[in-house]
Amino acid sequence: MPELEPMQIWERVQLIKDDTRFPLGVLISGSGTNLQAIIDACESGELQARVAVVISNKEGAYGLERARAAGITAVHIDPAQYSDYRAYNHAIAASLEAHGVQLVVMAGYMRLLGNEVLRAFPQAVINLHPALLPAFPGASAIPDAFEWGVKITGVTVHFADEAFDRGPIICQEPVRVEQDDTLETLEAKIHEVEHRMIVEAIRLIITERVSIEGRTVHISEG
Amino acid sequence: MPELEPMQIWERVQLIKDDTRFPLGVLISGSGTNLQAIIDACESGELQARVAVVISNKEGAYGLERARAAGITAVHIDPAQYSDYRAYNHAIAASLEAHGVQLVVMAGYMRLLGNEVLRAFPQAVINLHPALLPAFPGASAIPDAFEWGVKITGVTVHFADEAFDRGPIICQEPVRVEQDDTLETLEAKIHEVEHRMIVEAIRLIITERVSIEGRTVHISEG
Repeated sequence: MPELEPMQIWERVQLIKDDTRFPLGVLISGSGTNLQAIIDACESGELQARVAVVISNKEGAYGLERARAAGITAVHIDPAQYSDYRAYNHAIAASLEAHGVQLVVMAGYMRLLGNEVLRAFPQAVINLHPALLPAFPGASAIPDAFEWGVKITGVTVHFADEAFDRGPIICQEPVRVEQDDTLETLEAKIHEVEHRMIVEAIRLIITERVSIEGRTVHISEG
Repeated sequence: MPELEPMQIWERVQLIKDDTRFPLGVLISGSGTNLQAIIDACESGELQARVAVVISNKEGAYGLERARAAGITAVHIDPAQYSDYRAYNHAIAASLEAHGVQLVVMAGYMRLLGNEVLRAFPQAVINLHPALLPAFPGASAIPDAFEWGVKITGVTVHFADEAFDRGPIICQEPVRVEQDDTLETLEAKIHEVEHRMIVEAIRLIITERVSIEGRTVHISEG
């Protein structure tokens, strides 16, 4: 956090207290390009939301820098500092709750989220995945799809549940693998779609247009 | 087969002998709507091909009727009449070879094809699948995708290999599951895409625009 003068701190406290925008918590592990898309959409007013806290399991994640640069509280919660996976996830849930978060966004968070968080935020944890789930789950979705030789892959935003990459799907978009695509150009195309879709999914949820029935997510008209 | 007068038979023999169009063999198990799309494309000249033989593992498959109505040899090869799966597949390969087939099209053929056929037609057996493989392999792809709650599914045409629904992908098209889709409307949309894609895949292959490199299928410019 940059150091602030007492007056500035008081002003910020007032600002946050008076801020009626929807409070998001964002979990990351890396560079935070999707986090940046969310921050930008909040700042431009495209999303009537604010990022209340960013949490990373990796200390050096550049996304923490992005958050701090935008004046957002950025926390490294180190799994190694906790006795077990439950305690670690309990700490995440506690931090999210302490910052008044109402929707948790996994934006490149590369660990399975524990039940401690899922139970604290029922139907309020979403995950962004760079493939058309259930195809290519896991941490290397884009190379996996590329090596498989698919002609269509894409992006999925889904509610997180206790199984990895298996919760109800909110939205999906296809991305075509063109003849001259390399892994790098495909990654670039997918990331571009991700940035757009994560903002759109958050918008649908915070404007209360999303409902879940079994595994099917319904989107009501805007 | 309709009964033919000797002169008609002779005329047909001459016709087939002189027919330089690419000879296809089509394997089916059911109603044969994709077979019909192929027959129509051959008759219209969209495909410079002819269906040399249609083989079904099911005696009552309506696709056999469609073939006969178009003057195409239609054969029921009954798995129960063979000592084992290898012998059954050997009979399929023998029938395809006897009819001079150069490309085998699995169009709603609901059994795993044996190595006897794959080895007789190397890189010349293709399969049509109503999902974006590797998502939703198997015999109930459309209901499986619908029940999963995906927002994007689609159609795949791929080279068959020894693993079910896993060979190199020639082409894929996405199909969006809309808010008001039922299983029936989704099936109708997917079947429409299937009819178009199987013809397109055959066209790419018989015009020698398709090459395989590992798991990646390259399509050269037309």
